[in-house]
Amino acid sequence: MSAGAQTLSAAADVGDSMHAFMRELFPLCRSITGNGVRETLAAVGRRIPLELHEVPSGTAVLDWTVPDEWNIRDAFIAKDGRRLVDFQESNLHVVSYSEPVRASMTLAELRPHLHTLPEHPEWIPYRTSYYSRTWGFCLAQEQLDELEDGDYDVVIDSTLEPGSLTYGECFLPGEREDEVLLTTHVCHPSLANDNLSGIAVLTEVGARLRELPRSLSYRLLFIPGTIGSITWLARNEDRVSKVVAGLVLACVGDSAPLSYKRSRQGEAPIDRATTYVLRRGGMGQVVDFVPWGWDERQFNSPGFDVPVGSLSRSREGEYEEYHSSADDLELVRPASLEGALGAVLEIVDVLDSDRRYLNLAPRGEPQLGRRGLYPQVGGPAAEEEQLAMLWVLNQSDGRNSLLDIADRSGLPFTTISAAAARLRDAGLLATPAP
Amino acid sequence: MSAGAQTLSAAADVGDSMHAFMRELFPLCRSITGNGVRETLAAVGRRIPLELHEVPSGTAVLDWTVPDEWNIRDAFIAKDGRRLVDFQESNLHVVSYSEPVRASMTLAELRPHLHTLPEHPEWIPYRTSYYSRTWGFCLAQEQLDELEDGDYDVVIDSTLEPGSLTYGECFLPGEREDEVLLTTHVCHPSLANDNLSGIAVLTEVGARLRELPRSLSYRLLFIPGTIGSITWLARNEDRVSKVVAGLVLACVGDSAPLSYKRSRQGEAPIDRATTYVLRRGGMGQVVDFVPWGWDERQFNSPGFDVPVGSLSRSREGEYEEYHSSADDLELVRPASLEGALGAVLEIVDVLDSDRRYLNLAPRGEPQLGRRGLYPQVGGPAAEEEQLAMLWVLNQSDGRNSLLDIADRSGLPFTTISAAAARLRDAGLLATPAP
Amino acid sequence: MSAGAQTLSAAADVGDSMHAFMRELFPLCRSITGNGVRETLAAVGRRIPLELHEVPSGTAVLDWTVPDEWNIRDAFIAKDGRRLVDFQESNLHVVSYSEPVRASMTLAELRPHLHTLPEHPEWIPYRTSYYSRTWGFCLAQEQLDELEDGDYDVVIDSTLEPGSLTYGECFLPGEREDEVLLTTHVCHPSLANDNLSGIAVLTEVGARLRELPRSLSYRLLFIPGTIGSITWLARNEDRVSKVVAGLVLACVGDSAPLSYKRSRQGEAPIDRATTYVLRRGGMGQVVDFVPWGWDERQFNSPGFDVPVGSLSRSREGEYEEYHSSADDLELVRPASLEGALGAVLEIVDVLDSDRRYLNLAPRGEPQLGRRGLYPQVGGPAAEEEQLAMLWVLNQSDGRNSLLDIADRSGLPFTTISAAAARLRDAGLLATPAP
Repeated sequence: MSAGAQTLSAAADVGDSMHAFMRELFPLCRSITGNGVRETLAAVGRRIPLELHEVPSGTAVLDWTVPDEWNIRDAFIAKDGRRLVDFQESNLHVVSYSEPVRASMTLAELRPHLHTLPEHPEWIPYRTSYYSRTWGFCLAQEQLDELEDGDYDVVIDSTLEPGSLTYGECFLPGEREDEVLLTTHVCHPSLANDNLSGIAVLTEVGARLRELPRSLSYRLLFIPGTIGSITWLARNEDRVSKVVAGLVLACVGDSAPLSYKRSRQGEAPIDRATTYVLRRGGMGQVVDFVPWGWDERQFNSPGFDVPVGSLSRSREGEYEEYHSSADDLELVRPASLEGALGAVLEIVDVLDSDRRYLNLAPRGEPQLGRRGLYPQVGGPAAEEEQLAMLWVLNQSDGRNSLLDIADRSGLPFTTISAAAARLRDAGLLATPAP
Repeated sequence: MSAGAQTLSAAADVGDSMHAFMRELFPLCRSITGNGVRETLAAVGRRIPLELHEVPSGTAVLDWTVPDEWNIRDAFIAKDGRRLVDFQESNLHVVSYSEPVRASMTLAELRPHLHTLPEHPEWIPYRTSYYSRTWGFCLAQEQLDELEDGDYDVVIDSTLEPGSLTYGECFLPGEREDEVLLTTHVCHPSLANDNLSGIAVLTEVGARLRELPRSLSYRLLFIPGTIGSITWLARNEDRVSKVVAGLVLACVGDSAPLSYKRSRQGEAPIDRATTYVLRRGGMGQVVDFVPWGWDERQFNSPGFDVPVGSLSRSREGEYEEYHSSADDLELVRPASLEGALGAVLEIVDVLDSDRRYLNLAPRGEPQLGRRGLYPQVGGPAAEEEQLAMLWVLNQSDGRNSLLDIADRSGLPFTTISAAAARLRDAGLLATPAP
Repeated sequence: MSAGAQTLSAAADVGDSMHAFMRELFPLCRSITGNGVRETLAAVGRRIPLELHEVPSGTAVLDWTVPDEWNIRDAFIAKDGRRLVDFQESNLHVVSYSEPVRASMTLAELRPHLHTLPEHPEWIPYRTSYYSRTWGFCLAQEQLDELEDGDYDVVIDSTLEPGSLTYGECFLPGEREDEVLLTTHVCHPSLANDNLSGIAVLTEVGARLRELPRSLSYRLLFIPGTIGSITWLARNEDRVSKVVAGLVLACVGDSAPLSYKRSRQGEAPIDRATTYVLRRGGMGQVVDFVPWGWDERQFNSPGFDVPVGSLSRSREGEYEEYHSSADDLELVRPASLEGALGAVLEIVDVLDSDRRYLNLAPRGEPQLGRRGLYPQVGGPAAEEEQLAMLWVLNQSDGRNSLLDIADRSGLPFTTISAAAARLRDAGLLATPAP
């Protein structure tokens, strides 16, 4: 499926197109449940085939329970009939999962429910309270400082009641049943890098993968953070053993270099492939696993131990604008989205193309010349091509995969992969029985 | 047993107290057998419960034989009735295990029996001849240079005859039969760093360990070098398999940083724990095993292969004053003794607390919030506490111990250990069957 | 067999003598078959016992076929009766394996058959065409530039017809059937470093090995490149399993430091021994295996996987004069040949002496003093000797070889080996059953 990387450059405006999709999704008020998620998944579903799942509130999922569904129509803090803090201006103004409120109270009474970021007085923070019932507003410190004493009308027109949790799944079957899991979280309201960037890139990855021949099968999950992966794992325990590699995409749109966090296993195929792609391309850094971050925490729990890494630019909590109104569409650059897309397609290409071959003429070197396998013209490219054939022949004892050979030889994976294809076509390589 | 480290600072004068104990022991004329050792062990026995063993001369111990017992009352070289070299001034003046002599001889006849340190003309060297019968005197080069020709009266009032070898043993049982062996050599006469420092620190370690709850059992040995460990091994072959870790303490009082020499195995629990403590605390260096040094040579012989490391400051032979009269009480600093004591207690704490747990909710993360395990207040300490819980849960698959987790996470062992205790109390961790 | 290294210095003119042998061989027109190879092997055979093998053209050898035999008597390009390019001046002037030609042609017709090195206009390149029938001349670019238009007489008086491939084999049996394979290629015409240097050094190695006691058996191969090793492998498949180590010698005479290329296995005994010798002696570098170079390519193919490394100074293609008339006798220095000889003898000594012992007194240290094993005089050499005995005793649990012990201890292999001999003679070490 090496067409992936090549077709990327053809669509030079793919970064702009992903950014435009983010702009479309930006106003929706997403949370871990509710209509904001449904509308987001509907938009994704207009681009790639997406199966929607609704899991009823109260369903037991592993150690957790699917919570009540939260929806919100309006909210404000008003004084003398004038809305001072207004959900219609920014959905960040309301603490996610706030229970409904309709009250009049003094500033002193209101104050424990107000959240600000004193170190960034102009930014609105993003806060949630999924599992303990409360309510609250988020606002700029500047605005809080200007509030005067007196009585305020406080309204949160929300519902928090039995409903369901929604997630989307796009399955793209390949020649083999082994699956690659690609996931992103869809539970944040008007925040751009975290994580409309992940949604936009994963949607585009899906669109590309649909068009390519696939050796492996691919499963794309658009899920609310934590409870979404826990719900999927609870409902798919029999499928987990088929997952040979996984990648969580999040925060892939800012201007930092790419950063890959290894899986718990540390040297699984996803770790090897991503490390290879990032290092070879000088695209970014690789960091060790920590049981922190996004949904990789659940997949890498010891009872599943599915090798799932995560690809980001700035990691969670590591950029100033994280979880604030400053994580907006300006922070995300089309070129960054495009770079992340290219990296994912390259990683997937390595995963999909990597395999072990068996040299069928393993005693001595086979005579390449009489099979027309010597390059007809000279020069460095031809020498590299010939050297790649010798490496593949030398290492193909059934133990080493093409990526192993690329690593050991220092030659590009694509060169090794092309050499293997020529040797296979010449009858010198076979696929070993599994 | 993590009380160990904490109680240390409470006793701020512990360094002075250990130094005072050394001063008490300094004048005794110790050797590998004899009354000097007995008096030393009696002094230790006034501080911690010590079982004394007497092993008769001639007893076969492994490849060796317990030698005759040596005792000395007086010795001198005199001229014209004036004592020029006098055992009463320094017990270093006589080669240890010198046979009795009472003779008159010329300087030329005497000279082959005189030992000096020409590179340090003011110091008296320390010499022994345990296994080949001879006699000799040690003196300052300066003094030798002043001896005039003529006849000398030479007297060594010693006995070298069947008796016994003496060593002391302090056993502190714990919950488990697995033992930690802590040893120090007691065979050097008036030398301070080598090894009254080891005797003083090990005695204090014993006093502390007595007061602490113990998971492991502890065996402290106060033994003459080489023949002492060989004798103990010969008499305790059935016990050796219970020793899971060991540490030889010697030369722990000078002003060099601590230095740990690994066991032959190299990555045994004692090596891991000590490396962790020294590196984390920036206390000193870790060097690889060499079959040289103190009693660790015997424990690490291939037929036993007991993982015993050694903890020192300057190592044997690596400080100028080594085996000379300059290794005196001035060379040893109370703060150095205290630092070594603290390190040993920390090492023992890691050994004693380290264990493997099994996560009882291994599929996905358990919901910590509903169990009250989320820190109630924020800040870096709370974040570290929460991260420590996630690390313990993620790694507790029965293969990784708390020290493994501390190593991989980079978090302090005590933080990991405390997190494990909370999770265990919440029913989320179990101790796997052995 | 440690006499090897010592006797080297005795023969201070061995470098000159090897260089003189190269001078004798230089004029012969060698190729992968033919009389040049036979005359070369005859000269080697006058120095060491050499069994000659003739393998008929057309014989199937692994994936290859022994080609027709090529011989050449004369060749030239003449104009107006004057020889302008003349095989009698340099056998490099004719492309090796050129078919016979006798024609008159214009410069334009001739030109596609002329080869030069434009970047070195004074040098004649070396070219071959073993497996596709053609003919050609090699000449200096300067000379080509001076050729005027007009008709040229072109003569190559060669034969290319069924005959045989010739190689030489010198087998030196040892106490054990395990073999060390030492090979060099004999197929290049008047080129000095590549590879008369290899022929001269390997011949001298053979002369030395004959005179030494040998634990292992040694097989020296003087073979045409590629087809020679393939032919030997095809005819000796049952013997391959006896080869425990191998070394290809080539380009060992220029002024670069030695360079060892590891075997495919990477950590086989030949890799360990050569790395030890080169690093300890500061003689050169060690590089990783690549399936490129000389006959090691065939031995290291996955169906044989014989651990064969290669020892060179400048490696193939890595020096400017490579495969040109500038690779002449001036490029090769007697001291370089001698250095390579010394390294090979040291490597062979390590391979031959290395073995595992079993400590017969493994519990504690045996008492060395009563066995007379303590050095009688002091000083650094005596301390090293004693330390070496302790290392050998400590590590000889049946798993570690003398080279393992030398590596771990940092002591010289010869010191470790001598210590083991003393301990064995004292009855403290045994050879474990295989």
